[in-house]
Amino acid sequence: MIKVSVMYPNGADTRFDLNYYLAKHMPMVQAKLGSALKKVEVDHGLGGGEPGAPPAFVAMCHLHFDSVDAFQQAFGANAEAIVADIPNYTNAQPTVLVSEIKL
Amino acid sequence: MIKVSVMYPNGADTRFDLNYYLAKHMPMVQAKLGSALKKVEVDHGLGGGEPGAPPAFVAMCHLHFDSVDAFQQAFGANAEAIVADIPNYTNAQPTVLVSEIKL
Repeated sequence: MIKVSVMYPNGADTRFDLNYYLAKHMPMVQAKLGSALKKVEVDHGLGGGEPGAPPAFVAMCHLHFDSVDAFQQAFGANAEAIVADIPNYTNAQPTVLVSEIKL
Repeated sequence: MIKVSVMYPNGADTRFDLNYYLAKHMPMVQAKLGSALKKVEVDHGLGGGEPGAPPAFVAMCHLHFDSVDAFQQAFGANAEAIVADIPNYTNAQPTVLVSEIKL
């Protein structure tokens, strides 16, 4: 099982519309990826490790797939529509990380 | 529910002993945090969003707690032992992110 983490770095000028992200973007992503998407998680950054420290990422989503191939097939066919929606909720450039789930 | 993500940045000189991390470090963390720790996930970074791109993080773990207070109480009492074990598996300085789980 693999996880694709889409991580939105936080900065002084970062705009992120969490309501739009949860109500519009993520349901669209789930509908487009269909049954290849096994599980989805969304985290909203609150802070860093030290009290009062800002979060390094304003939000992250974690998309679970059976394999890298399953992700690439599902995402490739829908990448244009998904990426085109990003400016509707953020000006951040997301960092994408593909991981193997070990635990 | 909140999630504490401990993210190990990847670099040219990054050393990360995944076997030690999974077999020794994480079981110690789970034992020390006890029932306050509701769930744990470990991801091993494979790559970035573009084919062939290196992973931004060599590994991440995600620790779930009922609240920030529950995390601080459980971690505070054990921080010294947990942090002291880090050099046994990596030379990376982890980024810690505290998030609210929205989905």
